[in-house]
Amino acid sequence: MSNPITKLFNVEYPIVQGGMIWVSGSKLAAAVSSAGGLGIIGAGSMKPDVLKEHILKAQSLTSKPFGVNVPLLYSGAEEQINCALDLGVKIFFTSAGTPKKFTAYLKNKGAVVVHVTSSPELAVKCMDAGVDAIVAEGYEAGGHNGREEITTMTLIPQVCAKVNIPVIAAGGIATGAGIAACLALGASGVQMGTRFLMTKESSAHENFKNLALQSLPHSTQMAMRSTVPVRLLNNQFANEIKKIEETYTGDELKTKLTEHLGKFRAMNGMHKGELDQGELEIGQVVSLIKSVPSVAEVMRELIDDYQKTISRLPKNLSF
Amino acid sequence: MSNPITKLFNVEYPIVQGGMIWVSGSKLAAAVSSAGGLGIIGAGSMKPDVLKEHILKAQSLTSKPFGVNVPLLYSGAEEQINCALDLGVKIFFTSAGTPKKFTAYLKNKGAVVVHVTSSPELAVKCMDAGVDAIVAEGYEAGGHNGREEITTMTLIPQVCAKVNIPVIAAGGIATGAGIAACLALGASGVQMGTRFLMTKESSAHENFKNLALQSLPHSTQMAMRSTVPVRLLNNQFANEIKKIEETYTGDELKTKLTEHLGKFRAMNGMHKGELDQGELEIGQVVSLIKSVPSVAEVMRELIDDYQKTISRLPKNLSF
Repeated sequence: MSNPITKLFNVEYPIVQGGMIWVSGSKLAAAVSSAGGLGIIGAGSMKPDVLKEHILKAQSLTSKPFGVNVPLLYSGAEEQINCALDLGVKIFFTSAGTPKKFTAYLKNKGAVVVHVTSSPELAVKCMDAGVDAIVAEGYEAGGHNGREEITTMTLIPQVCAKVNIPVIAAGGIATGAGIAACLALGASGVQMGTRFLMTKESSAHENFKNLALQSLPHSTQMAMRSTVPVRLLNNQFANEIKKIEETYTGDELKTKLTEHLGKFRAMNGMHKGELDQGELEIGQVVSLIKSVPSVAEVMRELIDDYQKTISRLPKNLSF
Repeated sequence: MSNPITKLFNVEYPIVQGGMIWVSGSKLAAAVSSAGGLGIIGAGSMKPDVLKEHILKAQSLTSKPFGVNVPLLYSGAEEQINCALDLGVKIFFTSAGTPKKFTAYLKNKGAVVVHVTSSPELAVKCMDAGVDAIVAEGYEAGGHNGREEITTMTLIPQVCAKVNIPVIAAGGIATGAGIAACLALGASGVQMGTRFLMTKESSAHENFKNLALQSLPHSTQMAMRSTVPVRLLNNQFANEIKKIEETYTGDELKTKLTEHLGKFRAMNGMHKGELDQGELEIGQVVSLIKSVPSVAEVMRELIDDYQKTISRLPKNLSF
């Protein structure tokens, strides 16, 4: 059997590590790529000089391909893209913006382009814009999220039915069984954020990882639905946001949310380990994760668990 | 291979038709059971005399086992349970209440008891109460829904990790691929509501089925989060609810929602086909469904699609 995702990226396993601001730097991306997956540097939180440093570092740590994730809503997106292109990066994951903006530009430079979507309709727009593959990310995913609230279970088959390019499933996946489920639903590969956040090599602060280890199935919530929906780990900041959402409506709500969000919340929470007042972006599947191993261990376990899952599935449903 | 769900219910396929108020009467339940699954009469919307009529009718239509779903939040629950017991029903799905209330009583009468849950914590309580199996229902499911918003993809493995009784996955499943995904995640069987609502034999009004056929991936919404969360098909009533939710907060919000809900919304919408002012409960997966076939056709397609899905899954992830 062949696989369109491993072919597209020239990797061994159809497993992508999601680009995460403040969490996925050179160390994590290189570890994932070295282990046979596709590592991604999350450029969203990096000024060009920092991004350059991370790309050069990753190139020194692994000979395998890796990518860069660029959220297009930030003003620095173009500079980040050119910085990565100049350093020879050939794989771009774009998100949080229109796929029309940079796809043709990147393709002309010989790059592989993947865009992150949360709805089948946007997936079609991505295909029309000429991307090579799509990440279809469900409601359970951590961080910024679609307004449509379409879960991975219902999103993947609908995206697969609408496009004729490879689909990478994301949202709620942290095990080999989860990978098998997504391939069953029609995806060709998976992207995992939270599972790789919870590894030794990620740049998430130790405090954040330790708090996440204690999480329960309802320990995340979708916050700021009325402005910029984002899935957060429950903490004081998330509860304050919830309180504001329960108290105000309309424009007043939006103003209060923007004021309360302020600046540097994500950096303070995820990277500096400020657990009360920081913003802790994480996926709903976090409560399934009970340890912080190395990336190599995670990858081995995923591969093993996938094989075990497939071998225990009945060939047909008649008993 | 053997299967704990087919054994428990003495059926051929580990496929349960979800009990749905105003939708799953004798005709639907008997058709599903005759086709080798487990049909369920949704007693929630039935007075005892109507329930009796449906049970007797179903017994005349099929020789196969079928069950009754009893939402425990209604005052008539005990009467419904005794009515079904008197008529020889041996399979009970209870929901919307504590599993402690009737499980021992039903088990003493020799019945099989299954309770519907939306969180791993409640699943453990169900096991402790002595139920025979659990339905674990994700955020994408139609109708009344948990506050925790745990999606099927993250719920199933966490419930399976917590309990040592069989788990039936629900929420977002409408195809054989979806069944394969849920078995991969650790479930022993599946419950499908929306897929069976969209059949010739269901008692959903034709207007409702026709509107549902036109739905898009974002055509459902979770309404009344602050009172009784319920997933609805978008219509005028659902939009009015949304408007109220965007306008009021706190106790005023709860009062306005209760007032606006009024009575008979579900009957008027789902059973009488009042598309503007009725309440149309349906799952997010509805937009994947493009036809209203017979139950027998649905079952054949599910079995075929499952087999095809399993045969196309790679044995291991290395390419």
